[in-house]
Amino acid sequence: MVTIDAERFRDSFETYSAIGATEQGGLHRLALTDADRKARDRFVADLREIGLDVRIDAIGNVFARRDGTNADAAPVLIGSHLDTQPRGGRFDGQLGVLAALETLRTLEEEDIETERPIEIVDWTNEEGSRFQHAMLGSAVFVGELGLETALAMTDADGTRLGDALERIGYDGEHPVRSHDHHAYLELHVEQGPKLAEHGASVGVVDGVFGIRWLEATIHGETDHAGPTPMHARHDAVATAADAVSEINALPNRLSTDAVTTVGRIRAEPDSINVVPDRAEFTIDVRSADDDVVQTAAERVAAELAAACERHRTTYELDTVWETSVTEFAPELREAVGDAAATLDVAHERVVSGAGHDAKYLSRIMPAGMVFVPSVGGTTHNEAEFTEWDDCVAGANVYANAALSLAGDV
Amino acid sequence: MVTIDAERFRDSFETYSAIGATEQGGLHRLALTDADRKARDRFVADLREIGLDVRIDAIGNVFARRDGTNADAAPVLIGSHLDTQPRGGRFDGQLGVLAALETLRTLEEEDIETERPIEIVDWTNEEGSRFQHAMLGSAVFVGELGLETALAMTDADGTRLGDALERIGYDGEHPVRSHDHHAYLELHVEQGPKLAEHGASVGVVDGVFGIRWLEATIHGETDHAGPTPMHARHDAVATAADAVSEINALPNRLSTDAVTTVGRIRAEPDSINVVPDRAEFTIDVRSADDDVVQTAAERVAAELAAACERHRTTYELDTVWETSVTEFAPELREAVGDAAATLDVAHERVVSGAGHDAKYLSRIMPAGMVFVPSVGGTTHNEAEFTEWDDCVAGANVYANAALSLAGDV
Repeated sequence: MVTIDAERFRDSFETYSAIGATEQGGLHRLALTDADRKARDRFVADLREIGLDVRIDAIGNVFARRDGTNADAAPVLIGSHLDTQPRGGRFDGQLGVLAALETLRTLEEEDIETERPIEIVDWTNEEGSRFQHAMLGSAVFVGELGLETALAMTDADGTRLGDALERIGYDGEHPVRSHDHHAYLELHVEQGPKLAEHGASVGVVDGVFGIRWLEATIHGETDHAGPTPMHARHDAVATAADAVSEINALPNRLSTDAVTTVGRIRAEPDSINVVPDRAEFTIDVRSADDDVVQTAAERVAAELAAACERHRTTYELDTVWETSVTEFAPELREAVGDAAATLDVAHERVVSGAGHDAKYLSRIMPAGMVFVPSVGGTTHNEAEFTEWDDCVAGANVYANAALSLAGDV
Repeated sequence: MVTIDAERFRDSFETYSAIGATEQGGLHRLALTDADRKARDRFVADLREIGLDVRIDAIGNVFARRDGTNADAAPVLIGSHLDTQPRGGRFDGQLGVLAALETLRTLEEEDIETERPIEIVDWTNEEGSRFQHAMLGSAVFVGELGLETALAMTDADGTRLGDALERIGYDGEHPVRSHDHHAYLELHVEQGPKLAEHGASVGVVDGVFGIRWLEATIHGETDHAGPTPMHARHDAVATAADAVSEINALPNRLSTDAVTTVGRIRAEPDSINVVPDRAEFTIDVRSADDDVVQTAAERVAAELAAACERHRTTYELDTVWETSVTEFAPELREAVGDAAATLDVAHERVVSGAGHDAKYLSRIMPAGMVFVPSVGGTTHNEAEFTEWDDCVAGANVYANAALSLAGDV
């Protein structure tokens, strides 16, 4: 068993939280901006301070390695991401990187040897806010996304990702994936309210929800908002409103964990006194059960058909992206659960509603996650908050789980 | 009794329909564009051909006067507008101007004298599409809108209305309103389906709906579309959808004529995987009864409050524009009804759901309207259609009503 230095961990958290800090106590540190560079530079300096060699790969992921006693053993990989959402919070991503850093510092300070090497990582552009591909660095790492495709992506200003990497000096020379790893373990905030509601300090993450993104388009007919009686209309927005109301009521009828979200909606011709002939909206469907996602998508289509029949309109429904349920490796879940039990930390099993780098990593190695609570479930905004005691409890569970995976010598 | 020349009327309609014609059989003749100038030039030439003096006022309204036997009598004013919606139809506005022109041609040809002078008018920018004030020329005429304010309005390209008038040579020197009128009579397409559904050729227009424009804003909280359970959300779009569904169901519970339209809707932050914290939409409420408009607006607020309570969100509701019910003058309604009865034209009383120049004119003189059917209620698009027999029947009713108002000598 190891115990992290809670004060040092806190100091690091405050130091990193000053880089890209917003006035409202959040972080605005978009991938590959000057703020991200400063955070990366601090991270590299911190890694060198504990004697580690740092390597940067071709997509800008930052790695460092602490040797094990068995040079031939595949390393355990730990870490998360330092980039944030626009005006995001201080806990999302950063906390996981700093828990991994604190793990390595603790092992160094206490001269603890492991059989396997332990490698730490900061993944590039996890948020997908600046360059529109979430978990981009890990996607390239696992081969989900081609390196050249990723480097050629542009932000809203037309800046190429490759050029942005070069500008901040993180266009690394190391190949994106040079060797195998034994396992990947990531600490992250839950981004939902359950752990906090249940009084648990740590979540042992079973996996990640399946997700399907749908786009609905309603076709009606324009008419004058005055002389056209209600019964004579083919109103695309009226159709959309009926369908969206029903779509938001679907999850409670399907399962306890399913969620549906309509985040975008627009009308055409977008005029106050014209019955609209076109409405578009998106639907994000998630569940821990792929069958529930499939059923929900079918019900979405059925609700659209019913609303269109009522309003004498028509619809199209397209799946624009989907990913099936991820189940994390049993040995990782066990390592996390055992560490929590041994440390007597209140914990419970959870399924992540959000995607994480660990989701991609699980395709090529056993992967797992430790969650800490998000008070009120608030995330992706400046009010994001986790009680510091929970951060410390989570980091201790994380450090000990990583230690057990690496083989305490 | 007079009878118009149906063939001449048809020839005019075809001639004017070629100016700004679209490939799909509509008209694209926005106010003060080259197409509008060509239509105005044709109109001025046609007026001069029957010996009338043309005058252009400072806002570009085109007038001409046919003298009566009593030079001191206030003239009867007849006409409509030649501008169209973008890719609009051939009947809206143009038909009324040509019915007025045909009325004067018929009186000339048959050497019919009237006691009162008859003046014909083409109003500037009735549609409000290019310069965002509907019925602009008549609004300036009746003093609703200041001349300088109107001249300073700009279109989407930043062109001043005054400059646009000057460019096409219709920045007239005549004062906007130099003398009183006895009455105003306008022929227009119904823009709704009722007359066609009931087999009536002519509508005797009792008045114009009261209209209120509302803007609703919903305030919620952003959340991650995955980890946030449905019950923990404060979803602005879910709130808006519930409210819009109820708002569209209101008219049938309130009266047989009320209509509500949600023509614009948008969400923020407008992201597929973020629970939206803001939704905005507009509501256009109309009825022939001001009390019904008021009740409908109150019910809109009540539905918003109920939806917000359900979703733990809040709302604002602002009235951005309103106009009360217009009742046309009894003597005009009688003149139109009598002409229809005498000519044995199938007619019925209707209330206009749309605004018209006649609505403004009724503020300063007795005003009235003759409607002809819109097949299927289709309007403001290229498919707008009225059976030609109905156009002729309407023009005959119109000519005889105008003649009775002017005093057949």
